[in-house]
Amino acid sequence: MVERTSHRAAPEHTHPDDVPVPTALAALADPVRITLVRELAGSPVWTRSCGSFDVPVGKAALSHHFAVLRGAGLVEQRDEGPKRVNRLRREEFDARFPGLLALVLRED
Amino acid sequence: MVERTSHRAAPEHTHPDDVPVPTALAALADPVRITLVRELAGSPVWTRSCGSFDVPVGKAALSHHFAVLRGAGLVEQRDEGPKRVNRLRREEFDARFPGLLALVLRED
Repeated sequence: MVERTSHRAAPEHTHPDDVPVPTALAALADPVRITLVRELAGSPVWTRSCGSFDVPVGKAALSHHFAVLRGAGLVEQRDEGPKRVNRLRREEFDARFPGLLALVLRED
Repeated sequence: MVERTSHRAAPEHTHPDDVPVPTALAALADPVRITLVRELAGSPVWTRSCGSFDVPVGKAALSHHFAVLRGAGLVEQRDEGPKRVNRLRREEFDARFPGLLALVLRED
């Protein structure tokens, strides 16, 4: 038998290069996902677990928001024991959509 | 009695300076609205009536898409006799959201 640290399937990712413009815009057109992206941008990579964000949504909704962010090439995730930790794909996303993250990260 | 060229109410507009980031992103996260914006960007201002766009939607849906574009500060409209004509608010929108229109207008 194979030993596993988690029963969850590994998260599926989409590289920013494979993301259509409307998908990227829709992913960032949501206040909760903007908060997630801003908090990730302010933290060292791989330090933030999914439960560590200050957003007013339940676990299922949060899981959906992270799936949208992965599908838009914005977030990479990996499992570390019981935790799923996150990285903002800042350089790859900026290369594909110049200036878009900056718009979302700026004070408004 | 007042003579009127149209029974429609004048369209309501929102200036780009008053548009939140998520509203702007959501307005542009739609293939039909992207087509409208691209066609407007390729035409002289005030030359395109609402019926002149090559999009696969009915009249009610088209009217909704234009309302979303007005509400995001992307399009200005005015009535000229029986026609409602359009202008892309390119300079004002670019000043508020630098680089965003360019992302949508580029070849992908």
